[in-house]
Amino acid sequence: MLKDFVKTDKPESEELRVRIDTERQKLNACQMKIAEKALPVMVIFEGWGAAGKGSVLGKVIKNIDPRFFKVRTYASPTAEDRRYPFLYRYMRDIPMKGKFTFYDTYWMEEITDGVMSGEIDENDYNKKIDSIKRAERSLSDNGYLILKFFFHIGCKEQKKRLDALLDDKDTKWRVDKNDLYENKHYDESLKIYDRYLCDTNSPSSPWYIIDAKDKKFAELQVLEFINQGIDTALKNSDLAAPILQNTFKLRKTPLLKQVDLKDKVLTDEEYEKRLDELQSELKMLHYKLYRRKIPVIIAYEGWDAAGKGGNIKRITGALDPRGYEVHPIASPEPHEKARHFLWRFWTRLPRTGHIAIFDRTWYGRVMVERLEGFCSENDWQRAYNEINEFEKELTDWGAVVIKFWVQIDKRTQLKRFKERQATPEKQWKITDEDWRNREKWDLYEDAIDEMIQKTSTENAPWYILESVDKKYARIKALEITVEELKKACSR
Amino acid sequence: MLKDFVKTDKPESEELRVRIDTERQKLNACQMKIAEKALPVMVIFEGWGAAGKGSVLGKVIKNIDPRFFKVRTYASPTAEDRRYPFLYRYMRDIPMKGKFTFYDTYWMEEITDGVMSGEIDENDYNKKIDSIKRAERSLSDNGYLILKFFFHIGCKEQKKRLDALLDDKDTKWRVDKNDLYENKHYDESLKIYDRYLCDTNSPSSPWYIIDAKDKKFAELQVLEFINQGIDTALKNSDLAAPILQNTFKLRKTPLLKQVDLKDKVLTDEEYEKRLDELQSELKMLHYKLYRRKIPVIIAYEGWDAAGKGGNIKRITGALDPRGYEVHPIASPEPHEKARHFLWRFWTRLPRTGHIAIFDRTWYGRVMVERLEGFCSENDWQRAYNEINEFEKELTDWGAVVIKFWVQIDKRTQLKRFKERQATPEKQWKITDEDWRNREKWDLYEDAIDEMIQKTSTENAPWYILESVDKKYARIKALEITVEELKKACSR
Repeated sequence: MLKDFVKTDKPESEELRVRIDTERQKLNACQMKIAEKALPVMVIFEGWGAAGKGSVLGKVIKNIDPRFFKVRTYASPTAEDRRYPFLYRYMRDIPMKGKFTFYDTYWMEEITDGVMSGEIDENDYNKKIDSIKRAERSLSDNGYLILKFFFHIGCKEQKKRLDALLDDKDTKWRVDKNDLYENKHYDESLKIYDRYLCDTNSPSSPWYIIDAKDKKFAELQVLEFINQGIDTALKNSDLAAPILQNTFKLRKTPLLKQVDLKDKVLTDEEYEKRLDELQSELKMLHYKLYRRKIPVIIAYEGWDAAGKGGNIKRITGALDPRGYEVHPIASPEPHEKARHFLWRFWTRLPRTGHIAIFDRTWYGRVMVERLEGFCSENDWQRAYNEINEFEKELTDWGAVVIKFWVQIDKRTQLKRFKERQATPEKQWKITDEDWRNREKWDLYEDAIDEMIQKTSTENAPWYILESVDKKYARIKALEITVEELKKACSR
Repeated sequence: MLKDFVKTDKPESEELRVRIDTERQKLNACQMKIAEKALPVMVIFEGWGAAGKGSVLGKVIKNIDPRFFKVRTYASPTAEDRRYPFLYRYMRDIPMKGKFTFYDTYWMEEITDGVMSGEIDENDYNKKIDSIKRAERSLSDNGYLILKFFFHIGCKEQKKRLDALLDDKDTKWRVDKNDLYENKHYDESLKIYDRYLCDTNSPSSPWYIIDAKDKKFAELQVLEFINQGIDTALKNSDLAAPILQNTFKLRKTPLLKQVDLKDKVLTDEEYEKRLDELQSELKMLHYKLYRRKIPVIIAYEGWDAAGKGGNIKRITGALDPRGYEVHPIASPEPHEKARHFLWRFWTRLPRTGHIAIFDRTWYGRVMVERLEGFCSENDWQRAYNEINEFEKELTDWGAVVIKFWVQIDKRTQLKRFKERQATPEKQWKITDEDWRNREKWDLYEDAIDEMIQKTSTENAPWYILESVDKKYARIKALEITVEELKKACSR
C-alpha cells in the first residue's frame, strides 16, 4: 500500500485554508450528534517517526469539547504490562459510547517495533495480527467507529525533520532510538509497515494513508476522513453485522436434559476425605502456578440456587488469598454499559500467576441479556463467536480457562428457594427476580443449551457440575480444577 | 508498644475452638449488616515476616461471601508507581461502602522497609507519617472503619519459621531478603516497627497487636477485634466527626463582591497578540515540565456560563495532547459515590510530567453538595480541611496546583443563558438545572466566599478570573499559569 502511494490532489494554499475551516466546523458540529447517537469513535494515528502525528492530533482535538474526548499514548510495554495479554492495555482504553478517543499510536507500533528489533518472530507476528484483526472486527461489529491513519513521509523528508529536532536542545529528547533506526533502514521499515497495513486493512476498519509532507494538507486529509467516516457511521447505526461461522474446534457436551442428576451423591465421609485431599493438592498447585506465572480463569454459571457460591468457597478455601480474586458479576454499571460488553471482563483479568474466579460471567450476554432484551438479536447471535475469540485470546496468552455450569432440576430449585425464604440469614439471597427467572425456565434451558453447544471449545470447554447433591458438585469442581492445573504445570 | 507487649489470656485448646467458632459465626452474620448500613471496612494485616498474616487472613475471609470483600497486596513500588504520590496506589484500593477490603500489608511496609534500607531519611519519614495520619483520619471521619493488626512474634520463633520455609523447595521462594534482614537485625527492626506503631496509633484507627506465636490464637484475636470493631462502628454510624482547626498558611483573597469586574477588558488586537505570546511560552514550558517530570494540576470552578470551557481551551491550545488530560467533572457515578468523596480525584491524578485540568473539581463538596443536601453538614464543614490536606499532598509531591475561580455578575449570566438558548449549537450547554442554580445565586455566593477564604492556602491559592470580558479572563489565566510553571521550572 505504501510503496505506490502518490497523492496528487493537494489544493492551493487559499483553497486549503478554506477547506480546513469548513471541515473544522463540521467536526465541531458532529460532536453533539455523536453524543446523541451514542457512537464511540476511535481515531488512531500511526506512521513514521517525525511525520507530524502529534501536531495534527493536537489541531484536530481543538475542535472538540474536552467533555467528549480523551487522548491516549503508549510507551513500550513495562514488566507489569507484560503480565497481561498483549491486547489488555489497549482494550482497557477503548472509548465510552458517544465519545472520541485519539491514540498517538495504538497497537500497531508495538508490533512493528517488535518486528524491527527482532523481538517478535514470524509465528508471534501472525498470532498478534490475528488478535488485532479480531479485536478490530469485534469492536466495529459492536458499533465502534475505528479510523486508522498512517502518516507517510519519504526517507529524505524524515531525515531533514529528525536533524532539525536534534539540532535544538529543547526538542532533541523527542527523537528516540527507533526513529533513528527507522530512518537508517528506511526501505526495510517500509516493508514492515506495508505488510502490517495490508494485513490489517479490513472493510470495516480500513487504513487511510496520509501524505504528511505538508502539515496543513495532512490536517485537511485527516479532518475529511474523520467527518466522512462519522457521517457514514451515523447512517449505519442500526445496521446488523454478519454472524460469522464458528472456526474453533468444539468438544462434544451433552444437552442439559441428557445430564443424569440421579445417583450423583457422596456420603459425608467420602466428601470430607476427598475435600481434604483435593484442597491440599490444589494449595500446592497454586504455589506452583504462581512461581511459573501461569494465569488461571475459572468461570461459574448455573441456575439460581444451584450452589455456585458454596462451590466457589471450596475452591478458594484452598488458595492463598494473595493470589486470587473472586469477581461477583451483577448487571453492568453505567460506565460499563457504555462500552463493549467484554470490557468489564478484560479489565478484570488476573495477572500472570494469579487466579480470577468469576461468579457469573460474560455469558450473561447470551442468557439474561438475550432473554430480557437487553441487547439486540444480532448482538447475542454474534456473541458466541466473540466469546470464543475472547477465550482464545486468554488461552493463547497461556491462561487456563475452566468453565463450570452448575446444574440442578426445577424441583430442587423450588425446594432451595423455599428454604432460603424460611431462613432469615439467607433471605437476602432470594429476590423477586429469581422467581421471575424461574418462570422462564424453559426459555433459559434452550438458551443455555445453545450456549454450551456453541462455546464448548477444545481450548476452553464447559464442564457440567451435577449439583442436586452440592457435595458431589464441589468435589467434581475440585477434581477438574486440580486436573487442569496439573496439566498446565506439566506443559 | 511492642517491647512491653505480653499476652496472658490465651485460652485452653477446647475453649479456643469454641470461641473461634462463635466469632466466625458472628462475622458471617455481620456481613449483611455492613451492606445494609453501607459501612466500608478496611482490615490491615502488618507484622514480622513469617508471622502468619497471610494464613490468618485466609481463614478470616472464609466467613465472608466473595461478593462482600476484596484482598489487596503490594509489592515494592514500581517505576510507574513512583510517578504518583506515595498514597496514590493505596487510596486507589479503598473499599466501597458496605464492603470489606483485606490488606496483606498496606502503607506501613513501604515505610518501614524504606527506613531499614536507608531509602527513607528522617525528613521523608516524618512527611510520610503525616500523610498517613491524615489519610487514616480523613477515611475514618468519612465513615471508614479501619482495623489495623500487627502480627508479633519473637526473634527465635521467627528464625524457626524462616528456616522451616527455607528447608522446603516448595516454600523457599516465600522468604525474601527483607525477612532475613529483619531477623538478623531483630532489635533494630523492632525499634523501627515500634516507632511506626506509636506514630500512627490514633483513637479512631488504633493498632491491635496480635500475639502470633499460636496461629489459632492469632485467628481468635483478629476475629474478636474485627467483630468488636464492627459492632462499635455500626452503633456510631450517625456520629459527627470533629471539625479541625485550619493549620495551613492562608493567602488573603477578596470576597466575590469586592472583585472589580469593570474595566477588565481587552481589545481584539491586544488579545490576539498576548494569546500568541503566552501560548508559545506555555508550549515550551510544557516540554520543560515533561522532561523535569513536574506534575501540574489546574482546577477550574466558576459560575455557570462564566466561560470555563473557552478558557480551558486557550490553555490546552498550547499543550501537546500527549501530555495533558481534561477531566470534566459531573455528578459522581454509583461506584464513585460509594467511596470517599476525594477518591474520584485521587484516581484521576496525572503522572509526573503530565498536566491534569479539572473542569469542576473536588470543591463540589462545599458548593453543590452542600447546598443541595447531597452530604451532611458535618461532611461539608470537615471538607475544607480535608481538601487543604489533599492539596498539600499534591504540592508536597512536587505538583504545581493552580485553582481558578471564573467570576461574572448575575446580569452577565442572564445574558449568556439567553444567548445559549437562542443558538441551536449551544442549547445543549443550558439545562433546567442551570436556571434552578441561578435562583440560589446568593446562597452560592456565600458558600463560594467561605470556600475561597478557607482554602486559599499558600501552597495552592485561588486565583480569580474576571470574565465579563472572556478575553481578559483567558489572558489572565494564561499569565498566571505561565508564571507558576516558570517558578516551578526554576526551583
